[in-house]
Amino acid sequence: MRTITLVGIGAGHPGHLTLQAIEAIAAAEVFFVLEKGRAADQLVAVREAILSRHAARPGWRLVRIADPRRASGGDYREAVADWHAARTRLLVEAIARDLPEGGRGAFLVWGDPALYDSAIRILDAVAAAGLAFHLEVIPGISAPQALAAAHRIPLNRIGEPVHVTTGRRIGEGLPPEIDSTVVMLDDGSGLAAVDPAGLDIWWGAYLGTPDEVLMAGPLAEIRDAILTLRAERRAAVGWIMDTYLLRRRD
Amino acid sequence: MRTITLVGIGAGHPGHLTLQAIEAIAAAEVFFVLEKGRAADQLVAVREAILSRHAARPGWRLVRIADPRRASGGDYREAVADWHAARTRLLVEAIARDLPEGGRGAFLVWGDPALYDSAIRILDAVAAAGLAFHLEVIPGISAPQALAAAHRIPLNRIGEPVHVTTGRRIGEGLPPEIDSTVVMLDDGSGLAAVDPAGLDIWWGAYLGTPDEVLMAGPLAEIRDAILTLRAERRAAVGWIMDTYLLRRRD
Repeated sequence: MRTITLVGIGAGHPGHLTLQAIEAIAAAEVFFVLEKGRAADQLVAVREAILSRHAARPGWRLVRIADPRRASGGDYREAVADWHAARTRLLVEAIARDLPEGGRGAFLVWGDPALYDSAIRILDAVAAAGLAFHLEVIPGISAPQALAAAHRIPLNRIGEPVHVTTGRRIGEGLPPEIDSTVVMLDDGSGLAAVDPAGLDIWWGAYLGTPDEVLMAGPLAEIRDAILTLRAERRAAVGWIMDTYLLRRRD
Repeated sequence: MRTITLVGIGAGHPGHLTLQAIEAIAAAEVFFVLEKGRAADQLVAVREAILSRHAARPGWRLVRIADPRRASGGDYREAVADWHAARTRLLVEAIARDLPEGGRGAFLVWGDPALYDSAIRILDAVAAAGLAFHLEVIPGISAPQALAAAHRIPLNRIGEPVHVTTGRRIGEGLPPEIDSTVVMLDDGSGLAAVDPAGLDIWWGAYLGTPDEVLMAGPLAEIRDAILTLRAERRAAVGWIMDTYLLRRRD
């Protein structure tokens, strides 16, 4: 039986790696990477740096898989489902070909495999397609945690909930009666659409990396500055990953 | 200027420690621990094991502070606020006495300092009380992440939000229109009060430790078994820390 480990590698800082993650990397002989184009080029480079430091099995190797493109427009869930189906086929082929029976393979996953990442679902689909393996998941520091640590704030108010959602959802309005909302996967349009009245924001991009930028303050006052900075940095770097906490002012 | 680092040490597994956390522990000379009674005795033992492995400064030492008791009953937020005020006074004294000017102190925090932990607020209060220091926060793997990894599930459905809340809140009813809710800080009464219709649960206790127990299934079918097991384990071990994900069935 093959073993495949999804290793959460954290939100950008090499120091986010856990001892569990390092052990799992050291034990694996094949690392699978889904390549996604330009943004991913730099992300793949970070993964390669992690592997060159922590991979330890003689002859370990990296297997690159060109990620199929996700259709834009149309129904979001349907587009994601089609994209996942195409990925599944590629992965079944790659695992069957490149990971020997009884071998240990790994995927390095940004942040935490449990939060807005498709790897668990894709590997469940791979198993459902008939390729048997033992699945292990290693949690990793996620972007909202790196954001909170960088700003030195708790995500929740005392005894109050934290709502984690997407830019797409936030564009439709903040959930009522929830005072702390973390937004991920926003291309800027969610932030631009939120009614800023009574909200504070703690924003961060490239968290944990040398490019990290942070801004915090009343949303009505600093939103334009964040959106401008976001566009500038995205153009300069070629990609951006950012996240933010919105909180209703007391 | 003193530096104080809040170090997230993860949800129970020694392998949850990040490289950042290890570096911060190695750099600190004084470790402050708030002691809370019996449950905490075992938790303090885990912290001591971490320190004996990773603390590296010659002459590093552990400073134990007896945590004041939180009043039970009455208004929850008020009781917590009083408790924090008493802690603040104790900490101002302890830091001024035990951490030299220019020194590096640390608190080892279960899970992530950003999620349902009072250390950031208490240290903000210490600073507001006039004791100046530089604050650093190191994120750590939180219990919901350890739960998801152990069950090998994502916390969110595709593109959908995740709501993180407390047992106290969940006892008042699940938030409407949210299909994934993670519950922390539940003494069992929240779980007992939820309407189980249409819900699945993924539950775990002592996550990441040798005592880890997991259960998953339709809430209506397994809730009694979870509550019974929870009571049994709590009586046997002397304390319990558990968390769970509730999800509306498709």
